[in-house]
Amino acid sequence: MTPSPLLAAAALSLLAIVPSASAQTAPPAKEAKAKTKTLAIVLFPRFETLDVFGPVEMWGRLDDYDIVTVSEHGGVIASAQGIDTVTDYSFEDAPQFDIIMIPGGMGTRTEVNNPVMLDFLRKQDEGTQYTTSVCTGSAVLAKAGILDGKKATSNKMAWAFATSQDDDVLWQPSARWVEDGKYVTSSGISAGIDMAIALIEDIEGREKAENVAKVAEYLWNDDPSDDPFAVEIAEAD
Amino acid sequence: MTPSPLLAAAALSLLAIVPSASAQTAPPAKEAKAKTKTLAIVLFPRFETLDVFGPVEMWGRLDDYDIVTVSEHGGVIASAQGIDTVTDYSFEDAPQFDIIMIPGGMGTRTEVNNPVMLDFLRKQDEGTQYTTSVCTGSAVLAKAGILDGKKATSNKMAWAFATSQDDDVLWQPSARWVEDGKYVTSSGISAGIDMAIALIEDIEGREKAENVAKVAEYLWNDDPSDDPFAVEIAEAD
Repeated sequence: MTPSPLLAAAALSLLAIVPSASAQTAPPAKEAKAKTKTLAIVLFPRFETLDVFGPVEMWGRLDDYDIVTVSEHGGVIASAQGIDTVTDYSFEDAPQFDIIMIPGGMGTRTEVNNPVMLDFLRKQDEGTQYTTSVCTGSAVLAKAGILDGKKATSNKMAWAFATSQDDDVLWQPSARWVEDGKYVTSSGISAGIDMAIALIEDIEGREKAENVAKVAEYLWNDDPSDDPFAVEIAEAD
Repeated sequence: MTPSPLLAAAALSLLAIVPSASAQTAPPAKEAKAKTKTLAIVLFPRFETLDVFGPVEMWGRLDDYDIVTVSEHGGVIASAQGIDTVTDYSFEDAPQFDIIMIPGGMGTRTEVNNPVMLDFLRKQDEGTQYTTSVCTGSAVLAKAGILDGKKATSNKMAWAFATSQDDDVLWQPSARWVEDGKYVTSSGISAGIDMAIALIEDIEGREKAENVAKVAEYLWNDDPSDDPFAVEIAEAD
């Protein structure tokens, strides 16, 4: 049986406004404590899967931050690897978030030309504690003008694409991740995990950061200047 | 505005039967090629986020395998970190998959006592090319009797829980991952990424495996006996 597109659309739009969309499941661990701040992941079609879920794994252990997702229209967003995530907010109903993170993925090639996305990021950035990205997410932040005059990095295999979005960014070709004030940008895909743990260190200290890595049986590369993939750029550009 | 639980339930049940729930988004990359085999991730409430999406990132680059998700009732499943994933199949409408992977997470404490889950895994296992797990997913496979007489490993911080599910498993306390015939089980959380790339090597060869790691800017631990977290067990047990 195939329901009409109208029914499907109705289901999706209902979901977008239902805060307890996961009520059928056991309450997630994050609800066990009252978390007073929010960390939002900005999703768009064909985002890179691990760019999002590596950091989510680590940030899910922050004491004070609820992890939420936001997309232009709300509803279901498919990653580049084809997994469907139900987003918690649309750009229109999103509150001011404390931390935002935009991932990379092939979808960023579309998003750098999406004025609604760029405007949303600029408005959120005015009130964030941290504005962050993984992989080519920094290309979108750059195109929005958010990284003007700031040091930043990006995916080493999409370096020309990322850096061409804004000449006024101080692009760092050899860095696992870069912190410049409240702006934290990481290299490609897996580098987001190292960046995420570094942000935990900033917020809750070294011991917590090391514990989060250990619980995940993860060997944290805790040196932002140790970039095993930097050589690739030098050869490519 | 808070819609009634009934409306929310209606939205969820509609979603569960709408195959094109992601039709509003651009087609995912996986649909670009015709893939003749399926690799299914078995989801349940409070699965561990990275257990699933680390391997999905890597396996998404397999040439011949479509990556799908399956859960007992289909619909939306929330991870331990609170992200909602729309599953592609329920246990009832699932076809025979070529590869299955069951992740870990706090939800496995419930699933080891869920006869419907154990029965589903046993039936799928009869026809799989590979039966795999990450973290405490091996506890569920063990409880189902699937790992009887096989070498296997699990999360090093939930070792007692995992190994107590079945004494007939040849539990390996020091291993990043273990392959025994078609059974491939990994240690905790991040170890699933190393295991996933090793499976790519088995299926498509060394060059492809190394390329997948490089594209993800990931330093692959390609030695299953190199387990940086094995010491923890010896101390804990």
